[in-house]
Amino acid sequence: MKKIEHIGIAVKNLSEANALYSKLLGTEPYKEEAVESEGVITSFFKIGETKIELLAATSEESTISKYIEKRGEGIHHIAFYVDDIESEVTRLQAEGFKILNTTPKKGADQKKVVFLHPKSTTGVLIELCENL
Amino acid sequence: MKKIEHIGIAVKNLSEANALYSKLLGTEPYKEEAVESEGVITSFFKIGETKIELLAATSEESTISKYIEKRGEGIHHIAFYVDDIESEVTRLQAEGFKILNTTPKKGADQKKVVFLHPKSTTGVLIELCENL
Repeated sequence: MKKIEHIGIAVKNLSEANALYSKLLGTEPYKEEAVESEGVITSFFKIGETKIELLAATSEESTISKYIEKRGEGIHHIAFYVDDIESEVTRLQAEGFKILNTTPKKGADQKKVVFLHPKSTTGVLIELCENL
Repeated sequence: MKKIEHIGIAVKNLSEANALYSKLLGTEPYKEEAVESEGVITSFFKIGETKIELLAATSEESTISKYIEKRGEGIHHIAFYVDDIESEVTRLQAEGFKILNTTPKKGADQKKVVFLHPKSTTGVLIELCENL
């Protein structure tokens, strides 16, 4: 685990949240990107070596839509940057962590991503990501 | 906001969580520290320029104890490092953010800290911190 690549925050309305986080952080989002396979639209703010990723649902089937329905808006996941995602998956499985998708999938921001089940990480949804 | 100083994670049992996060992150906590005024014991892991702070309650009155009772273990707050906490409080109040303690209080890790109300920040408890 090299660094925290980003923190993902589930929000109801992306444009309202962009305005709010721009005021909070004193900087504008540097990009917006839809991830159609996940039914989300995202925006990114750079802060130091890491990022804040806002995620809003574009479909009722989206995990973000279900998350907000159940828990309300809030911090959704922490993403760690790794150099070799396949070997990290192997290492973490051997350590007893439960991996949600052992085969990396394409995420936002030109990354391949894997998620760990929150039940094996004190309730925290953890993403591993590596540049595509 | 200069960088993410740390991410705070509420856990039930600090020593179990220390073992788990040591395996996950591939590094040991570099310190443990009690914050008696808050009824918590904390541990810190360095990762890149930021930190993971695990927080466990040492009293039933602790906000961490109440948080876990209500929401379970999980990500509790994001802390941003600022150069001048008093001027950030003034700026954010003027922007309409609700500040929980306008007078900074002493937090863990030799910091003075201020919290923003999650109702004004899409459900995210945000801490501002500056070195003492």
